[in-house]
Amino acid sequence: LRQGVPEVIFGEGKTPEQIALIAGEISGAGQNVLVTRVDAAKGAAVSALVPAFRYVPLARTGSIEVAPLPKRAAGAVAVVTAGTSDLPVAEEAIETLRAVGLEAKRLYDVGVAGLHRFLHRVEELRKASAVIVVAGMEGALPSVVGGLVAAPVVAVPTSVGYGAALGGFTALFGMLTSCASGVAVVNIDSGFGAAMVVHRMLPKE
Amino acid sequence: LRQGVPEVIFGEGKTPEQIALIAGEISGAGQNVLVTRVDAAKGAAVSALVPAFRYVPLARTGSIEVAPLPKRAAGAVAVVTAGTSDLPVAEEAIETLRAVGLEAKRLYDVGVAGLHRFLHRVEELRKASAVIVVAGMEGALPSVVGGLVAAPVVAVPTSVGYGAALGGFTALFGMLTSCASGVAVVNIDSGFGAAMVVHRMLPKE
Amino acid sequence: LRQGVPEVIFGEGKTPEQIALIAGEISGAGQNVLVTRVDAAKGAAVSALVPAFRYVPLARTGSIEVAPLPKRAAGAVAVVTAGTSDLPVAEEAIETLRAVGLEAKRLYDVGVAGLHRFLHRVEELRKASAVIVVAGMEGALPSVVGGLVAAPVVAVPTSVGYGAALGGFTALFGMLTSCASGVAVVNIDSGFGAAMVVHRMLPKE
Amino acid sequence: LRQGVPEVIFGEGKTPEQIALIAGEISGAGQNVLVTRVDAAKGAAVSALVPAFRYVPLARTGSIEVAPLPKRAAGAVAVVTAGTSDLPVAEEAIETLRAVGLEAKRLYDVGVAGLHRFLHRVEELRKASAVIVVAGMEGALPSVVGGLVAAPVVAVPTSVGYGAALGGFTALFGMLTSCASGVAVVNIDSGFGAAMVVHRMLPKE
Amino acid sequence: LRQGVPEVIFGEGKTPEQIALIAGEISGAGQNVLVTRVDAAKGAAVSALVPAFRYVPLARTGSIEVAPLPKRAAGAVAVVTAGTSDLPVAEEAIETLRAVGLEAKRLYDVGVAGLHRFLHRVEELRKASAVIVVAGMEGALPSVVGGLVAAPVVAVPTSVGYGAALGGFTALFGMLTSCASGVAVVNIDSGFGAAMVVHRMLPKE
Amino acid sequence: LRQGVPEVIFGEGKTPEQIALIAGEISGAGQNVLVTRVDAAKGAAVSALVPAFRYVPLARTGSIEVAPLPKRAAGAVAVVTAGTSDLPVAEEAIETLRAVGLEAKRLYDVGVAGLHRFLHRVEELRKASAVIVVAGMEGALPSVVGGLVAAPVVAVPTSVGYGAALGGFTALFGMLTSCASGVAVVNIDSGFGAAMVVHRMLPKE
Amino acid sequence: LRQGVPEVIFGEGKTPEQIALIAGEISGAGQNVLVTRVDAAKGAAVSALVPAFRYVPLARTGSIEVAPLPKRAAGAVAVVTAGTSDLPVAEEAIETLRAVGLEAKRLYDVGVAGLHRFLHRVEELRKASAVIVVAGMEGALPSVVGGLVAAPVVAVPTSVGYGAALGGFTALFGMLTSCASGVAVVNIDSGFGAAMVVHRMLPKE
Amino acid sequence: LRQGVPEVIFGEGKTPEQIALIAGEISGAGQNVLVTRVDAAKGAAVSALVPAFRYVPLARTGSIEVAPLPKRAAGAVAVVTAGTSDLPVAEEAIETLRAVGLEAKRLYDVGVAGLHRFLHRVEELRKASAVIVVAGMEGALPSVVGGLVAAPVVAVPTSVGYGAALGGFTALFGMLTSCASGVAVVNIDSGFGAAMVVHRMLPKE
Ligand SMILES: Nc1ncnc2c1ncn2[C@@H]1O[C@H](COP(=O)(O)O)[C@@H](O)[C@H]1O
Ligand SMILES: Nc1ncnc2c1ncn2[C@@H]1O[C@H](COP(=O)(O)O)[C@@H](O)[C@H]1O
Ligand SMILES: Nc1ncnc2c1ncn2[C@@H]1O[C@H](COP(=O)(O)O)[C@@H](O)[C@H]1O
Ligand SMILES: Nc1ncnc2c1ncn2[C@@H]1O[C@H](COP(=O)(O)O)[C@@H](O)[C@H]1O
Ligand SMILES: [Mg+2]
Ligand SMILES: [Mg+2]
Ligand SMILES: [Mg+2]
Ligand SMILES: [Mg+2]
Ligand SMILES: [Mg+2]
Ligand SMILES: [Mg+2]
Ligand SMILES: [Mg+2]
Ligand SMILES: [Mg+2]
Repeated sequence: LRQGVPEVIFGEGKTPEQIALIAGEISGAGQNVLVTRVDAAKGAAVSALVPAFRYVPLARTGSIEVAPLPKRAAGAVAVVTAGTSDLPVAEEAIETLRAVGLEAKRLYDVGVAGLHRFLHRVEELRKASAVIVVAGMEGALPSVVGGLVAAPVVAVPTSVGYGAALGGFTALFGMLTSCASGVAVVNIDSGFGAAMVVHRMLPKE
Repeated sequence: LRQGVPEVIFGEGKTPEQIALIAGEISGAGQNVLVTRVDAAKGAAVSALVPAFRYVPLARTGSIEVAPLPKRAAGAVAVVTAGTSDLPVAEEAIETLRAVGLEAKRLYDVGVAGLHRFLHRVEELRKASAVIVVAGMEGALPSVVGGLVAAPVVAVPTSVGYGAALGGFTALFGMLTSCASGVAVVNIDSGFGAAMVVHRMLPKE
Repeated sequence: LRQGVPEVIFGEGKTPEQIALIAGEISGAGQNVLVTRVDAAKGAAVSALVPAFRYVPLARTGSIEVAPLPKRAAGAVAVVTAGTSDLPVAEEAIETLRAVGLEAKRLYDVGVAGLHRFLHRVEELRKASAVIVVAGMEGALPSVVGGLVAAPVVAVPTSVGYGAALGGFTALFGMLTSCASGVAVVNIDSGFGAAMVVHRMLPKE
Repeated sequence: LRQGVPEVIFGEGKTPEQIALIAGEISGAGQNVLVTRVDAAKGAAVSALVPAFRYVPLARTGSIEVAPLPKRAAGAVAVVTAGTSDLPVAEEAIETLRAVGLEAKRLYDVGVAGLHRFLHRVEELRKASAVIVVAGMEGALPSVVGGLVAAPVVAVPTSVGYGAALGGFTALFGMLTSCASGVAVVNIDSGFGAAMVVHRMLPKE
Repeated sequence: LRQGVPEVIFGEGKTPEQIALIAGEISGAGQNVLVTRVDAAKGAAVSALVPAFRYVPLARTGSIEVAPLPKRAAGAVAVVTAGTSDLPVAEEAIETLRAVGLEAKRLYDVGVAGLHRFLHRVEELRKASAVIVVAGMEGALPSVVGGLVAAPVVAVPTSVGYGAALGGFTALFGMLTSCASGVAVVNIDSGFGAAMVVHRMLPKE
Repeated sequence: LRQGVPEVIFGEGKTPEQIALIAGEISGAGQNVLVTRVDAAKGAAVSALVPAFRYVPLARTGSIEVAPLPKRAAGAVAVVTAGTSDLPVAEEAIETLRAVGLEAKRLYDVGVAGLHRFLHRVEELRKASAVIVVAGMEGALPSVVGGLVAAPVVAVPTSVGYGAALGGFTALFGMLTSCASGVAVVNIDSGFGAAMVVHRMLPKE
Repeated sequence: LRQGVPEVIFGEGKTPEQIALIAGEISGAGQNVLVTRVDAAKGAAVSALVPAFRYVPLARTGSIEVAPLPKRAAGAVAVVTAGTSDLPVAEEAIETLRAVGLEAKRLYDVGVAGLHRFLHRVEELRKASAVIVVAGMEGALPSVVGGLVAAPVVAVPTSVGYGAALGGFTALFGMLTSCASGVAVVNIDSGFGAAMVVHRMLPKE
Repeated sequence: LRQGVPEVIFGEGKTPEQIALIAGEISGAGQNVLVTRVDAAKGAAVSALVPAFRYVPLARTGSIEVAPLPKRAAGAVAVVTAGTSDLPVAEEAIETLRAVGLEAKRLYDVGVAGLHRFLHRVEELRKASAVIVVAGMEGALPSVVGGLVAAPVVAVPTSVGYGAALGGFTALFGMLTSCASGVAVVNIDSGFGAAMVVHRMLPKE
């Protein structure tokens, strides 16, 4: 078991049959499986083949849980989004956190253009053991969050936006050059990646 | 006189002699001249040729003022910077505002990673007739400003930063996709351009 | 009510149900709502759910107007397009202007390659309180307009064209480096953004 | 003699000694030689080695003319620039035209933001056998010229400008997507290339 | 009639109804019309609305010819392609040449990797009044052609290829930096543009 | 004191006088200061102005330490480099770790093309509380490290390499798409950023 | 017969009828034919037209073999993939190797994040006459392979991945800057190209 | 000794002292050393420190040879360049070939725009055991060479050219999409890389 986590299958570019086969082998050996980037049609097809497959539409993930989930002492991880279109990525992060035994606290739709709405949530943010910030377009949210909390901040750029949003690259580059120091960045739309960064940081038990 | 403003010469890629010649002709005809993007050496050389040339090192501009500056009823324009490296661009904007008869109010070094420092300045911001926001790196500042003031906001990306800052393109793209609506954007490092946008908007007398 | 304008919902990446829900809440509270970037199928679906939803196919916008539109003293805003393919973006601008209480004057299909056709419209252009210039491909129109009018000019690049048009980036970059000074630029295809820039500039009553 | 033209040496990345050697061999065989992209220092060094080397600083070219220049019946070629910073590229074109026996007519500094100045020159433009249009920044000039003349139009983007000018690529892409049809385009800063395109088009005698 | 040519409508992003309307107005006034970038479905729809519409599937163009085509003394224009996938672009050029009264000679599938096949065609190439070279991928063909013929050479990059072909930009940039001098370049896939460049160069009668 | 760390000044684009002034103010108030991206000449100039300024040439950092460094219980952080040209970035990370009270263990020159040399160091790697991996060119090292250790892995792309290395972007993008999951990424050449990510993760006391 | 290999047709952008025609002509003349980049629908259509067409779905290739395949003394070529999504590209390489008379040995799913799985296969790798390494995302595998074997290594980047994977360009650039020396690179997803590089290297009989 | 070749040091970004130290250690152990990308000043400095250092200015390489060079049975490798500016890269390849025991045959300045000059050299090309093709600008030469020889072809793009040459990327992408099949590509300006690819392919003794 690499790194003490469930096996995670990258669902994109695999057929339902291939996913069912690989996931079946792993879970048959008594290990939990998470599959990411599974669209609705593929999710239904895998569920038809593998009744134990629990598909989560918003997160576009599915899982088979044959062993108890890990129990970890770390406090809840805050998952913050700038807008509502960032939700699928945030939920992918939350499903992954769950798979590695971490609890999540959702703080959605707190973009910095509505600063007062954001400021109301700062106390909650400061209680988190780590903060995952999910934002598209100009990706400004991690800069503001990073200046207000001392905990680890992992920024996930999303492909939300058009034109100069560059399919997520503007948010990605903005997060990498954030004027708040110590912001860790992962790939565009990779809620999975952010959760795994947090998994490595927090106490394993 | 195009657009009712002083002639503005783009100083880059011109010799001191060429600048002196063109500027001399215009001022000789009784019209003010502003020259932008003039580095220190070139500024000194032009000053040696044209004693009336007033060079401003920080703004990298020079001017010859033979006619009174316009007097305009518009209130002061706020010029806000995220960091101290953004100053030359801000000062270029201010020299241009001056040339078109507009007054500036400096609010420097109020980047969003230090939110409390920023929040102290909001009342001042709200009094401005227009706001020019100068920021490099991830260029997050206009999103926060745009959400807090109803006046026109003109964002100037700067080439401050390295790596993923992309020489100012990350800030430029971020400002173009700002989640605050109605932010007008100009070219990278173009304090001149931002001032001219404001010039067009505010009452001419 | 942020910035004194109706709430504007970004329709892309939201389901008809989500749009109906959010728009219903806002209009239920007595406030007007505008939804942008809604394609024909989604527009029909929202209309089916919310009879008060007024969908405008060419602009790809929809709105619910429960309160009287603002009345503003500012004169008409000229909305100029280079070609006929730029119309959807121009109409999005016009629907947004309407929502913030501003009147529009259409000057369509006046690209600079047919200069005489363009010159016939200059007098009309000069009467506008502000000019929104919508152009794709090489985006040359704002440079010519900017040199002829003293009013604010807001340039909107469109994704019209192929190959070297780069999906609108060539027009975007061309407008940012326009040889006419004081041209304000917004994101590719963002008629909404241009209208909001104008909204900030013109007298609110 | 490939294509019936003098040999043209690309001066960049060659030492003065190498240029002197190659140019000496060709001219020694009784053929004219043109060298492009030679900066001032290198031009002086080659002149010191080869007294017959005629260096033209503004064009950054040098030549050795041992045979009479070709005489061609074609009328003058108009060479138009948008701004004064485009002059070196225009002069490189003119030196190349001269080398292939073509006469040039300069129309400098007629950028489209000052449309009236431009319109005064249209009659002259229409008399040219071909038009070379040299422009940087947004490169809008060829679109206007192309709509007004029926003769061949060759557009040369220049690297003049900063930020979104992208070192000439914005002008290049703008010219390739010009709304005026039939505009031929050459590489950034390639006055030489534009002159050679014209050379191919016009009668050889 | 701008530039003495039939009106050319850009078919992309227009509905069949819009095309029928505009084309009908022009042809109703006794002038020929060419429509480019019309896919098969749209071509059929316009034909159903306008019986006189002659659709050419391979070229993706349609035309209404109500006046006699111009008769011009210029010899045939060679249209050369590197591979068979470049045919649609070549045929668009040929339909445009026809519309402006120019005859075409096809030399297809003569890519430089099969040099002997190419060398057999050189004599034919040398007889052409102008050469349009259509090539995708690395776009090497214009360099070889340009070195062998003295006539005008217009290079059209195509979007044929994958990966590093960059949707035609590799061919575009390669043609712009061709080691053969005097190659004129047009936009990616623009057979129309190449024909219009040739139209401007050749005698009008 | 934002985030409980010493103030860190971005030295690029500031004069020695500006650095001396700002650093003097902070240290005068009893707080430690770190200055990053200070080249040798600037380092000497600041040292001349501020004798307490400790300049570290290899790391291109300087510091003034007026208060005791923090003492933290966390174990040593491994700082791994692929090649010797990556050293300055690694040393910048180490100076920053020191400033926030963390100890570093150097594992230099263990690139994956010499796998056996790398495998000898795995045991050491597994003892680290966190691993900072510094690599340029293709940036493959974090993928191998990430698969072998369970601790947090922070990857720093460097601008080492030429051509397709893209000044560090190839390593940056490679690290963001690493097949090892949970790798956190920071900006190109940002040893400082990596250390600050680690600072946030490890126990503060 | 160019280069002593079967004719290979690029299937993309050709209709089934065109493929059937060209393939029929070649095989009718007694020569083998391979068609690449043929999707399932097109494969079925060609098979219906040409019964001798052997379609291989996973490789997206088809062939007509009318002559015996070449027999070559060279040992087996190892074809290595990082993940299971890289299979289609690997199988295209294998079908091409077969067509030029070379045998393949598959080593699939040996990505470097699971180093122990990889190390088990090194002995097999070292026996190969050449190694084709197929990898997407960060493309790190060729660097590790290149350091462990002395035989020729040909790297094929694949378009597997999202966001910063850049559709295969990150892997492409990573392979071109690999810290293992002497890695030959081909175009993204070009299993065909890699096999042809190997074909040129190995003894022809 | 990795791969049976001399140690090769990447000279860029290392001080003369560092190079002298590393090279001294290796040669002191009886092994030959090659250092690449060493400019003239650094070459002189290393020579002053290490008298045995043999610096080759044109190739920008230096070497210490303490053991006899390998003797290999493979025939000469053709090294072909398109223009004279490509020479430094070609000579780097030749110095590397020498270091691994391979002989080179120079065919310089045979660009495809002068096809007849090129055709005279084809017989020589066909005798080579492998061909290294060095070309900048549009990089067309490998396509022509690849179609004429059956031996391995390794293409090296160079950074020669300006504007659309993109510092070598146009040649790089052109070579990767060459219409001649089986062309192996290496990094921009990497004569070293091409020689190492050839080293792997040819018999080791
Ligand atoms: N959403 C995701 N983004 C990036 N990598 C992923 C994702 N989901 C799974 N992976 C990785 O993909 C690997 C599995 O790939 P595969 O063997 O193709 O299923 C696992 O090691 C995961 O680390
Ligand atoms: N067409 C548009 N382009 C850019 N931003 C928009 C557009 N339409 C709405 N918005 C912005 O999107 C925000 C609403 O986002 P959401 O909460 O996701 O609906 C509003 O504050 C608007 O400023
Ligand atoms: N300014 C220039 N831009 C592009 N190509 C040029 C230029 N000057 C000369 N050339 C070309 O470079 C070739 C000569 O290259 P070289 O043999 O390196 O001097 C000639 O055939 C010209 O076509
Ligand atoms: N295939 C094409 N590529 C580029 N421009 C075109 C094309 N077809 C037509 N045009 C141009 O588009 C203009 C007509 O645009 P529109 O008024 O939108 O039909 C004409 O003036 C033509 O010059
Ligand atoms: Mg966002
Ligand atoms: Mg900033
Ligand atoms: Mg347009
Ligand atoms: Mg210009
Ligand atoms: Mg081709
Ligand atoms: Mg490295
Ligand atoms: Mg991979
Ligand atoms: Mg070349």
